[in-house]
Amino acid sequence: MSDSAASATSAAVEPGMVRLSLAEVHALARDTLVGAGLGVPHAEAIARSIARAEADECHSHGLYRLIGYVASVRSGKAERTALPVLTRATSAVLRVDARRGFAPLAIETGVPALIEAARTYGIAALAIHDCYHFSALWADIEPAVEAGLAAWCFTVGQCCVAPAGGARPLLGTNPMAFGWPVPQGQPFIFDFATSAAARGEIELKRRAGATLPPGWAVGPEGAPTTDPASALAGALLPFGGHKGSALSMMVELIAGPLIGDLTSRQALAAENGDGGPPLGGELFVAIDPAVFGTESLASRLAEGEALFAAAREQPGVRLPGERRYAARARSGNGVLVPATLYAELKALGRPA
Amino acid sequence: MSDSAASATSAAVEPGMVRLSLAEVHALARDTLVGAGLGVPHAEAIARSIARAEADECHSHGLYRLIGYVASVRSGKAERTALPVLTRATSAVLRVDARRGFAPLAIETGVPALIEAARTYGIAALAIHDCYHFSALWADIEPAVEAGLAAWCFTVGQCCVAPAGGARPLLGTNPMAFGWPVPQGQPFIFDFATSAAARGEIELKRRAGATLPPGWAVGPEGAPTTDPASALAGALLPFGGHKGSALSMMVELIAGPLIGDLTSRQALAAENGDGGPPLGGELFVAIDPAVFGTESLASRLAEGEALFAAAREQPGVRLPGERRYAARARSGNGVLVPATLYAELKALGRPA
Repeated sequence: MSDSAASATSAAVEPGMVRLSLAEVHALARDTLVGAGLGVPHAEAIARSIARAEADECHSHGLYRLIGYVASVRSGKAERTALPVLTRATSAVLRVDARRGFAPLAIETGVPALIEAARTYGIAALAIHDCYHFSALWADIEPAVEAGLAAWCFTVGQCCVAPAGGARPLLGTNPMAFGWPVPQGQPFIFDFATSAAARGEIELKRRAGATLPPGWAVGPEGAPTTDPASALAGALLPFGGHKGSALSMMVELIAGPLIGDLTSRQALAAENGDGGPPLGGELFVAIDPAVFGTESLASRLAEGEALFAAAREQPGVRLPGERRYAARARSGNGVLVPATLYAELKALGRPA
Repeated sequence: MSDSAASATSAAVEPGMVRLSLAEVHALARDTLVGAGLGVPHAEAIARSIARAEADECHSHGLYRLIGYVASVRSGKAERTALPVLTRATSAVLRVDARRGFAPLAIETGVPALIEAARTYGIAALAIHDCYHFSALWADIEPAVEAGLAAWCFTVGQCCVAPAGGARPLLGTNPMAFGWPVPQGQPFIFDFATSAAARGEIELKRRAGATLPPGWAVGPEGAPTTDPASALAGALLPFGGHKGSALSMMVELIAGPLIGDLTSRQALAAENGDGGPPLGGELFVAIDPAVFGTESLASRLAEGEALFAAAREQPGVRLPGERRYAARARSGNGVLVPATLYAELKALGRPA
């Protein structure tokens, strides 16, 4: 056993663990949210999202997220019961008005229509509006990719990133995801923040007394820093220098002004600080490979497979998603949840 | 004057310069290509592309490119006279069969239809097939962005990039471009290779006896290297670690198998080594912001402008394209061309 000083700083890492089946994860999430006052359709959609994240061992988007979701239910920030509304801007551009509710139900409402429109027109877009987004982007596009489409999604993240060369937060963490279908097995899907690191990673380094790798952040005066406290008072940097910075700005534009939703600065200004997700939108684009090319779809998908196989042949190369899929294969036996988090969530579910 | 040893290695950098008007650049390019045997419509389209690159001081895509273009005309690799053919896969997905010709005329053939389809359906795609692409991607999308669209394009580059963690070339330099419209003035357009550097940059470092920044390349055994010769025998790396590597793979998939065109490995296998561009395809996606959002388009474009203004307020931040636009403003007075290149091109235009 660690001593009490150590356990105070590492409670999330080394406590006893509880094993839960995925059905138990789902039920815990749903019951906690319904107990907090959220409508059942929203609670069910969030519970599906959380169970998928736990199954893939994406703990940052798993049960841990319930704390923020419940905070935003209780603070009145997120709409509890109103259902998302799907409309069409054109035959190939869909809109879901999430009506200030959480994103998962809005995404479930829109993605089947996106898939159908992409199959009909070859390319289609879906804009989710006025939602509180707290889920993992790989999961948002996975149904479209499993339906045989190439798909992207983009959302504006927390405003804490300076453009390359700059010193002050202007951009969100601005994640993007892309997926490519495969004939059998699990699709190629990546999902990353366009910031060099997540703000939570900086916080973890600070608590661990560690320094940051060069290039992650600048301090409040704009000078490069490897000190987590200085980084938290300054700004994160985009990944990959000016190229990552350009991508971050692209995400800010297309998940913000393009679809008529908030930039990260506007979301910050609208934020009540309850610890839950920021208000904003999400853009999906999907393309049906079947309508392109003169060679068969099968031969073209086989070409993608050959590329992945050649990458795997190189020692040291790991394809995006492989770690998640390995976790998913294991999680039929249930997933491990820190006992402290489990106890916290059980308490959270009781009426306040 | 430099001594003869120095001038031998720096002939492209320090010779006398010739000032040409943009009309003279265009005429030189067109006449050189026609002199080499290329059909006039192709020569005119390439000349427009080269004059735009020179105007923006993108010399790597300017008159210098004529050497490769002419090589591929003379070797018989590129089709000399066949005209590109525009067809429709769906109402929102356009195809241009470039019929193994150079890309510029195929792009000029397809982009007006892309703009029209994006305005009608809100989103549209254009695939250019079987072309030899040697131009700058920012120029490929600029007409669509100036027409008020958000637009992307992607093409597979020369196969010389290892995936992150790997040691052997598998991916192309795989550039992508994105543009965002502005109500007045010049649009936000970025264009970058997903490799850490261009192969030409490595070659220049080798000739200068310089070392490479860390992270650009691995040697033939797969170990990181800062030695240009070792890098040229090994592989370039993607920019930005595993995130840039994922983007490079995305470009390889969507500009290759998605549209039914060659991957960089296939293009390498098809290459005759004449020094001209590789065979391949290009994917365009365009979105009309006017169909999205419930607020006015003007207010949403103003939001983009506010983001750019806030970025410019931070000392050290430069927006993509600003250097090019400054060059463009100067180039009304003509552009400077190295006298040695000018002499080489004049000789190139004479029938072989």
